Amino acid sequence: DDALVIAGERFGSRLVMGTGGAPSLQVLEDALLASETEMTTVAMRRIDPAQTGSVLDVLRRHGIRVLPNTAGCFTAADAVLTARLAREALETNWVKLEVIADEHTLLPDPVELLEAAERLVDDGFVVLPYTNDDPVLAHRLEQVGCAAVMPLGAPIGSGLGIRNPHNIELIVERAGVPVVLDAGIGTASEAAQAMELGCSAVLLATAVTRAQRPAVMAQAMRDAVRAGRLARRAGRIPVRRYAQPSSPPV
Amino acid sequence: DDALVIAGERFGSRLVMGTGGAPSLQVLEDALLASETEMTTVAMRRIDPAQTGSVLDVLRRHGIRVLPNTAGCFTAADAVLTARLAREALETNWVKLEVIADEHTLLPDPVELLEAAERLVDDGFVVLPYTNDDPVLAHRLEQVGCAAVMPLGAPIGSGLGIRNPHNIELIVERAGVPVVLDAGIGTASEAAQAMELGCSAVLLATAVTRAQRPAVMAQAMRDAVRAGRLARRAGRIPVRRYAQPSSPPV
Amino acid sequence: DDALVIAGERFGSRLVMGTGGAPSLQVLEDALLASETEMTTVAMRRIDPAQTGSVLDVLRRHGIRVLPNTAGCFTAADAVLTARLAREALETNWVKLEVIADEHTLLPDPVELLEAAERLVDDGFVVLPYTNDDPVLAHRLEQVGCAAVMPLGAPIGSGLGIRNPHNIELIVERAGVPVVLDAGIGTASEAAQAMELGCSAVLLATAVTRAQRPAVMAQAMRDAVRAGRLARRAGRIPVRRYAQPSSPPV
Amino acid sequence: DDALVIAGERFGSRLVMGTGGAPSLQVLEDALLASETEMTTVAMRRIDPAQTGSVLDVLRRHGIRVLPNTAGCFTAADAVLTARLAREALETNWVKLEVIADEHTLLPDPVELLEAAERLVDDGFVVLPYTNDDPVLAHRLEQVGCAAVMPLGAPIGSGLGIRNPHNIELIVERAGVPVVLDAGIGTASEAAQAMELGCSAVLLATAVTRAQRPAVMAQAMRDAVRAGRLARRAGRIPVRRYAQPSSPPV
Repeated sequence: DDALVIAGERFGSRLVMGTGGAPSLQVLEDALLASETEMTTVAMRRIDPAQTGSVLDVLRRHGIRVLPNTAGCFTAADAVLTARLAREALETNWVKLEVIADEHTLLPDPVELLEAAERLVDDGFVVLPYTNDDPVLAHRLEQVGCAAVMPLGAPIGSGLGIRNPHNIELIVERAGVPVVLDAGIGTASEAAQAMELGCSAVLLATAVTRAQRPAVMAQAMRDAVRAGRLARRAGRIPVRRYAQPSSPPV
Repeated sequence: DDALVIAGERFGSRLVMGTGGAPSLQVLEDALLASETEMTTVAMRRIDPAQTGSVLDVLRRHGIRVLPNTAGCFTAADAVLTARLAREALETNWVKLEVIADEHTLLPDPVELLEAAERLVDDGFVVLPYTNDDPVLAHRLEQVGCAAVMPLGAPIGSGLGIRNPHNIELIVERAGVPVVLDAGIGTASEAAQAMELGCSAVLLATAVTRAQRPAVMAQAMRDAVRAGRLARRAGRIPVRRYAQPSSPPV
Repeated sequence: DDALVIAGERFGSRLVMGTGGAPSLQVLEDALLASETEMTTVAMRRIDPAQTGSVLDVLRRHGIRVLPNTAGCFTAADAVLTARLAREALETNWVKLEVIADEHTLLPDPVELLEAAERLVDDGFVVLPYTNDDPVLAHRLEQVGCAAVMPLGAPIGSGLGIRNPHNIELIVERAGVPVVLDAGIGTASEAAQAMELGCSAVLLATAVTRAQRPAVMAQAMRDAVRAGRLARRAGRIPVRRYAQPSSPPV
Repeated sequence: DDALVIAGERFGSRLVMGTGGAPSLQVLEDALLASETEMTTVAMRRIDPAQTGSVLDVLRRHGIRVLPNTAGCFTAADAVLTARLAREALETNWVKLEVIADEHTLLPDPVELLEAAERLVDDGFVVLPYTNDDPVLAHRLEQVGCAAVMPLGAPIGSGLGIRNPHNIELIVERAGVPVVLDAGIGTASEAAQAMELGCSAVLLATAVTRAQRPAVMAQAMRDAVRAGRLARRAGRIPVRRYAQPSSPPV
């Protein structure tokens, strides 16, 4: 058994999906099923919980846990309010916390993020913050009680992969909570790399929903996350500057 | 159906395994099974086809195709001779052609390699040459009739990954035969990357046999090759310098 | 004329030196002269302004501007106090602001740093903050009135170079004040790269003071910073995936 | 004194320039002077030695050594013939040997190159071959008597920089003759990097002649090559995964 555990909850899949960017609900549904994800993040700003035929319907139908997020919030106050609305509407105290600095970079605002995290933890939420790749901020977020930390690999939707693997390693080394690589992934090898660096899970949306064939990319990501996790556990060979023959023979 | 086809033969798995470096025959067997490979390369220098309890026994028992290689050969003449001995002993006209320049780098000798390839093709062999990542040499090898080209990612056993992805892309773009990434892979994400670059398959040994837990790494490589292949077929998102919100919402 | 201008002051050299790590005062003096730097940062914690035969003597003798820094401070309060002591002792209102999160990473604490910057600006200081490579924090620091922003390339003394060139570019694109690459540089090409990315200057210490031949590395850094600045101004050729002959001929 | 010595000749500058790609003879002249180069390569195919007002005039006027090259040759026979014509016309037995595989990649043909090199050495030439970055081929070229080896960083005119620094290091480690990085350089930091990897010189054309301001880029390259050479000689600090304070203080 190699389950992912966040705040006491167990997940068989280490791939968390987002729902943004899909061209249609059917495409999204196919991709979610292909990914075998067990938890999917949904922007509170975009959903009407009462509406049928929505993303929420799809998630309920397939037993996929909803993780509401605060996308579109620019201040701690706004994010806290949004999280509370989500808790009421969706009957979950889990929240993916996003506090964005500006529309241009979509990068997190470190000061507002930390403040929002602290307030939400105090308010009984299970907080999973989307953060930059700063090891110091990641540590502070854990210290104020976040249930996981979710550093970016690169800006949202950029597909640039993991710009600074060294920072991700530093975050993992010190973390006492799961580290979830969130944002920037463009292709499967990068999802595998995140796991090899020691992340506990990967969260992505655009890489799947905007691929030419979303359901196929969803399968790719599913396999890549498994591959990276297995490779981490297998203990890779050291890197050597020079060749090494595979002798002595068996 | 997305089978790998080499010289008219179909393979469901795109992971070719090598046998060198395993600490014991049992470890090797477990790793081969975990990898789900359908073709495995064996050094002619190291085997006695008549002997029971050998690598060949393991391969026969599990129906894994044997691909003899000419590891340890430094000249075209030596490689040609070794290939002929292999054909006689193992009743296969397939050969992984290795002509090494020196013991220190284990890098292929381009001149001797090309000459040996030409002679073996003329002699009716299905030739799969281990080559450097030079697009020109890869093209020459195809022109003389090789059934695949097998460029290295990095020196054998180094675990350095794919040192020059740009060259692998150039090779793939011009190739009319399968391109198999051979040598240098250290971990799963690199195997996925090889497939994303357009390789048709990955060949590796040390990364699995010398990992701390070989069978677990074999599973990782199996999943990574699948992931990379799926990602290639899925059509990844373009890389963008700036963030892109995942709106408009579904 | 291509002078660096910070807070209205002009500098002919775009290489700012630090003084830490030198094995002797003589080695430091030789390296400073070889570097042709015009501004050098000195840790307030380490100096006694009254003492003769000190680093300050060397700087005074050669007309190199002293930039006191707050190395060793872990809180905004501590940094503000240290900056004030420096102002009194050294008769300068310039300060390189460092607020470190911990001894292990020596990374800046974003929250304390921003608070200290704001207070020091209000107090009339010319503040040059050492920050991580987060474009959002860099922008905030400029907004509160810092005279430059000084993002790291990698952790202090690591010699890892610029881990995330993309972030440095994002910082430069939005900055209305000079961007000084500070920390992480190990060798000359990395200093040149910083300038090519659009930085206005480079600050380094360990790469010179702990090199095997500090004065030679100081010359290397001097030339590299010039080279990178010239290359930025020259307008480099675009990157192309394929070869391009240099014809048509002249 | 740190002169570059090739075949007994001494050069104060380690930057070798090419002449292709310049928009005018005047721009070329300005760039050559700004670069402070002492040797410049000229394509035999493009010049008429008898003509006045030519590239050769410029080189003669400034005392810059002419290094004829065999650009445009696709076979050993063609290259040998071209080299002989150059020797007669330009009264030099030095030749930059280029044997290209095709117009698309402009990559060297390893087999034809090696054969041409051998024949030209036998014929009394000082041969400087443009080669790929294969350590085995570089070694073979030295063994047949070449006076230097000139591996590429990336395809001609691509500006991709040094695609495989590891291979350049392997070449340098074994070389008994100067290694000159030739082709692929796009900007100054890459020229510095080539020298830091242990190359003895850098050869480039397009990066300067096609820059927006060629003479400024020529200065950048001049300084970058010096910087990289100095850094190599200075003995850089080791790379460390973690921060290191610059204490103990001076």
